[in-house]
Amino acid sequence: MSLHIVRTVADLRAVVSAWHREGLRVALVPTMGALHDGHMSLVKAGLDRADRVIVTLFVNPKQFNNPRDLDLYPRTETEDALKLSEAGAHVLFAPGIDEMYPHGFSTRVIVEGVSEGLCGAYRPGHFEGVATVVSKLLLQAGADCAIFGEKDYQQLLIIKRLVRDLDIPVEIVGSATIREEDGLAMSSRNQRLSPEARNIAPVLHREMVLAAQTIRSGEPVAEALAKAAEKIVAQGYDKVEYLEMRGAETLAPLDTFGEPARLLAAAWLDDVRLIDNIAV
Amino acid sequence: MSLHIVRTVADLRAVVSAWHREGLRVALVPTMGALHDGHMSLVKAGLDRADRVIVTLFVNPKQFNNPRDLDLYPRTETEDALKLSEAGAHVLFAPGIDEMYPHGFSTRVIVEGVSEGLCGAYRPGHFEGVATVVSKLLLQAGADCAIFGEKDYQQLLIIKRLVRDLDIPVEIVGSATIREEDGLAMSSRNQRLSPEARNIAPVLHREMVLAAQTIRSGEPVAEALAKAAEKIVAQGYDKVEYLEMRGAETLAPLDTFGEPARLLAAAWLDDVRLIDNIAV
Repeated sequence: MSLHIVRTVADLRAVVSAWHREGLRVALVPTMGALHDGHMSLVKAGLDRADRVIVTLFVNPKQFNNPRDLDLYPRTETEDALKLSEAGAHVLFAPGIDEMYPHGFSTRVIVEGVSEGLCGAYRPGHFEGVATVVSKLLLQAGADCAIFGEKDYQQLLIIKRLVRDLDIPVEIVGSATIREEDGLAMSSRNQRLSPEARNIAPVLHREMVLAAQTIRSGEPVAEALAKAAEKIVAQGYDKVEYLEMRGAETLAPLDTFGEPARLLAAAWLDDVRLIDNIAV
Repeated sequence: MSLHIVRTVADLRAVVSAWHREGLRVALVPTMGALHDGHMSLVKAGLDRADRVIVTLFVNPKQFNNPRDLDLYPRTETEDALKLSEAGAHVLFAPGIDEMYPHGFSTRVIVEGVSEGLCGAYRPGHFEGVATVVSKLLLQAGADCAIFGEKDYQQLLIIKRLVRDLDIPVEIVGSATIREEDGLAMSSRNQRLSPEARNIAPVLHREMVLAAQTIRSGEPVAEALAKAAEKIVAQGYDKVEYLEMRGAETLAPLDTFGEPARLLAAAWLDDVRLIDNIAV
């Protein structure tokens, strides 16, 4: 069965309704395209959990606080479709902007608490744009489960929160970050790194792993993180935007290591903003 | 078949799923209880359009900008249940506050544009609370249609907007305002009027009807409305909060009469805030 391309919400709902009438379980994998192995692992997680997998491709302008980042975001729909077809996904839902935000659109979904700090502090409006578009995609598809990467950890917790809070009838599944062999988290933005920057990029993850080890072995959290941030810059990053330890479930700030914790970071390299997170 | 009382979202979904498996169409009628003939007309509209009717009763604290108004809001669940049973409603969904807003709840739904001005200007946070709880109720129930009164006209348009914008799969139906014989729009708040104030109350509607007539016959809008507001106060109201003509579909301000228009008003009488609206 080849990949079916769907452009409208009406067609998407018709497909899902037909599947549900057959008793099939449906998984949704929302993406902004430029698919790499990280995305393909989400598709595989969908295929493992459901009978049918819908991948969505929509570069959502509302979640780009930086217009230049939106302009530069890679768009590779044809290549994406071929990858999805080969991987066994069933539908690619790739709506146009007018299908998603028709004239008069004026609703915003805001998740407080878990969206504060970290990326929320540096990308004003970003998570509001994410929460709004993800609410729409979940309600458009009516899938049984939806798969999101742990790479965007704060986003994953925001989506879990809004699904609980608005009673959206879908199961949210987090899927582990996929990394290059040198540890760099896969990201569409990695494409924008120069070859030199690409060599430096794994430093972020490497220093996070070392910091987690020293924290686990008893070093005070603030010192371990300050040292790691310094080493990341010393090895070629332009700036560490944040490097913090937070509660793994709530993202509440943690000064000392105890409950399940997560290290989260954003850092700039070669004019590209990279993020990563790991369990402590 | 007698009325079935449901307290949890899980039980509500089980009931609706069973109905849908039988091929039955389900209508939702969200209320804050203290049911009067206006509400009962919504129940009747639901019974006309669907095989099963769920009435929700939840006094939503998030939509009360005024804590005193929340305290004073009448709570008459038992009487409400008896009325609904007699009217032939099938389910009363009356969740507790913890079922609706469990610990950690932190999501807000905001509709811009149509919620600006009118009641939106005088009740900060009110429509955000409405949009959030209605989103939840619609997604909790998964009904095929939901009935709202035109009495709360701005609210009705906000709900239509958010359902379109978030792609909530439900049909929103507006149902005409039900009035006392003297023209006063039915409202749970009418109970709080003294007998003297109750005699004065119909003045609001009466002057709105007269203003609409003079506007239709060519009087300039601003003059007609200013005159009507003056007469409403002269006849015993304490204050006219707003009395405006707006586009019937968009609530865009209208200075001159042409396209389908609506008069909308809020006014204070005996420490009670009454609202009304009519087609011009």
